Amino acid sequence: MRDVSIIGIGQTPVGEHWDKSLRHLAYDALAAAMRDANIERADALYVGNMLSGEVSGQAHLGALIADFAGLRGIEAVKVEAACASAAAAFRQAYIGVASGLQDIVIAVGVEKMTDDIGSKVTAGLASAADAEYEVIHGVSFVALNALIMQRYMYENKLKREDFAGFAINAHANGARNPNAMFQSEISREAFVRSSLIADPIALLDASGMADGAAAVVLCPTEQAREFSSNAIRIKGSAVATDSLSVHDRRDPLWLQAAEDSSQRAYRQAKVGPADLDFFELHDAFTIMAALSLEAAGFAERGKGTWLARDGEITLEGKIPICTQGGLKARGHPVGATGLYQIVEAVQQLRGEAGPNQIANARLGMTQNIGGSGATIITHIFEKVNQ
Amino acid sequence: MRDVSIIGIGQTPVGEHWDKSLRHLAYDALAAAMRDANIERADALYVGNMLSGEVSGQAHLGALIADFAGLRGIEAVKVEAACASAAAAFRQAYIGVASGLQDIVIAVGVEKMTDDIGSKVTAGLASAADAEYEVIHGVSFVALNALIMQRYMYENKLKREDFAGFAINAHANGARNPNAMFQSEISREAFVRSSLIADPIALLDASGMADGAAAVVLCPTEQAREFSSNAIRIKGSAVATDSLSVHDRRDPLWLQAAEDSSQRAYRQAKVGPADLDFFELHDAFTIMAALSLEAAGFAERGKGTWLARDGEITLEGKIPICTQGGLKARGHPVGATGLYQIVEAVQQLRGEAGPNQIANARLGMTQNIGGSGATIITHIFEKVNQ
Repeated sequence: MRDVSIIGIGQTPVGEHWDKSLRHLAYDALAAAMRDANIERADALYVGNMLSGEVSGQAHLGALIADFAGLRGIEAVKVEAACASAAAAFRQAYIGVASGLQDIVIAVGVEKMTDDIGSKVTAGLASAADAEYEVIHGVSFVALNALIMQRYMYENKLKREDFAGFAINAHANGARNPNAMFQSEISREAFVRSSLIADPIALLDASGMADGAAAVVLCPTEQAREFSSNAIRIKGSAVATDSLSVHDRRDPLWLQAAEDSSQRAYRQAKVGPADLDFFELHDAFTIMAALSLEAAGFAERGKGTWLARDGEITLEGKIPICTQGGLKARGHPVGATGLYQIVEAVQQLRGEAGPNQIANARLGMTQNIGGSGATIITHIFEKVNQ
Repeated sequence: MRDVSIIGIGQTPVGEHWDKSLRHLAYDALAAAMRDANIERADALYVGNMLSGEVSGQAHLGALIADFAGLRGIEAVKVEAACASAAAAFRQAYIGVASGLQDIVIAVGVEKMTDDIGSKVTAGLASAADAEYEVIHGVSFVALNALIMQRYMYENKLKREDFAGFAINAHANGARNPNAMFQSEISREAFVRSSLIADPIALLDASGMADGAAAVVLCPTEQAREFSSNAIRIKGSAVATDSLSVHDRRDPLWLQAAEDSSQRAYRQAKVGPADLDFFELHDAFTIMAALSLEAAGFAERGKGTWLARDGEITLEGKIPICTQGGLKARGHPVGATGLYQIVEAVQQLRGEAGPNQIANARLGMTQNIGGSGATIITHIFEKVNQ
């Protein structure tokens, strides 16, 4: 098995791209990553996407995007794991290079949610949950997360306001990220006053639906120096799954797949939570940020919000999260999000994170969640001395 | 890179399964493959599926099926490449084992087309073509293939009847396959009289929409003997792509991706077309059978139908195709088809193909096509002396 590194990154701004179709967004990110890596060809392309079939009437994105990007003929395929689709595509790219079958591989995540006609997006997002056990009863994806948050607040004697720190931190960082959907800070008062969407989830607990694409180029670490002077090594990579249905889990307030994939990634990387300089977690809703911090080993059960309360998740804190705004402020183009997280991790490790740079960042983790915790994909990245 | 073998196969009958949902179909095939391989666990699951989001409102099949099959927690993901989704899932399973990251891996292809409400399937199938360049003009997937067939007949001075041999052969073999959707022979007269769907494609040129699932278990060849006394080795594996839009190809009558992926697979396997004992090709329409035979090197350009005319594609012919009925008679549950082809290839190489057994079959090829030729995945399998 070969060691693998990232030699190029690219992204589009996240937002409502009325002037660009799915393939144009994917191309913009992919071409930027290829320029960054200084490559003109690739052996394979893995596309992460969740909703193009439902929303845009377009399947078959592997060949479509390969062709549009000037890579006609290469091996190309789409990978889907609901909102974890982009990290799933990255994982397959990693395995492809690790195997020795593919040398230069591109992973691109793309989502076009504003093509929606007639609330296909809401129905599409619900398809991440169990259609026959959950969605058939009329529950939307936000409502499912609201049920989890309600129970979490009850068991841990918390109020909605206790989650404020997650949204405030995300917006503080997003305000300084030129690619973020929401480049504005929010106050605690704004969070508290925010309109409820599905009690207790309010607008400012929830990430925004958006268009966007992000891409990376991977190659064997031993070849990385030929292309890049600042390659970032993939030190850990793991996927774990759980029941789609929340009611069917042993413990609805514990992200078992986050614990499992984190532990596998820690073991592979030979590190623990205390070694990490930052953690790009999947804050689709503030409750998910709390649960992720707990299951990945940064907080005890029920105490995830304490880290936000105590300022430990800011850029200067013990474990900075959402360093470029997270899903909340950067935006959540579902099938692209996992690769935005990875692109942002690479920026931090390269020292290219601009005003959001964490001093001396050498080791970072990303975690992309599909459904309300049924697919969780964890990666650990390391800056290698050049 | 490790050598990889297949140690278990499973399938459901192909047809209209009104009594089973998508997950039940997948489970039936997967459990059969696990029993066949004599395994109770696996390291990873790759699911091939095209239409579950559009037709069944269910994405996220990796975690869903892993959980339902009693494999909760394992790495699982869905792979999509239109009608080549199942072979694409198999390809990822192959790479996973080859890489050394995964030992026991399951690939399952599943499609539930009869859940359709309001012709979502026709729209879904069209999403294999280019939504913005082709489908927007109102062309259906059958119509696209009809345009190709019309041009092929014009250039090569052929009539519809010249394609009869493909359908007759497929039904002759399907009639003896207990898992086939259409277990009946057809006559040349029936083919000629068959109603036109999209001129010149008639009902008996076209494969049937169906439900079904097929699965295989893979492991490193060096471990295969622990599980199975009749493991089948994967000798070649390749994916190639082309433009989705037919008008955008250099030659609309040449499956460039079939040529490319066949040649790559031949090189890896160190064999040529003349060495193969059979070829499970992708006869979604009779025209695709002709084009596949040409691009894979079994016939000269424009002469694919000659093999059918001359009886060379029957079980006793020079290059038997569709040995269990092919897409035409076994049926074409789109995201499962590629794994039905592989299961049938393994049956032939094990000597378990029943009344359709090819004598002394030692080397076989499968080829799964997505869209009208935009993703083509070729595998070559070998019987190893036990």
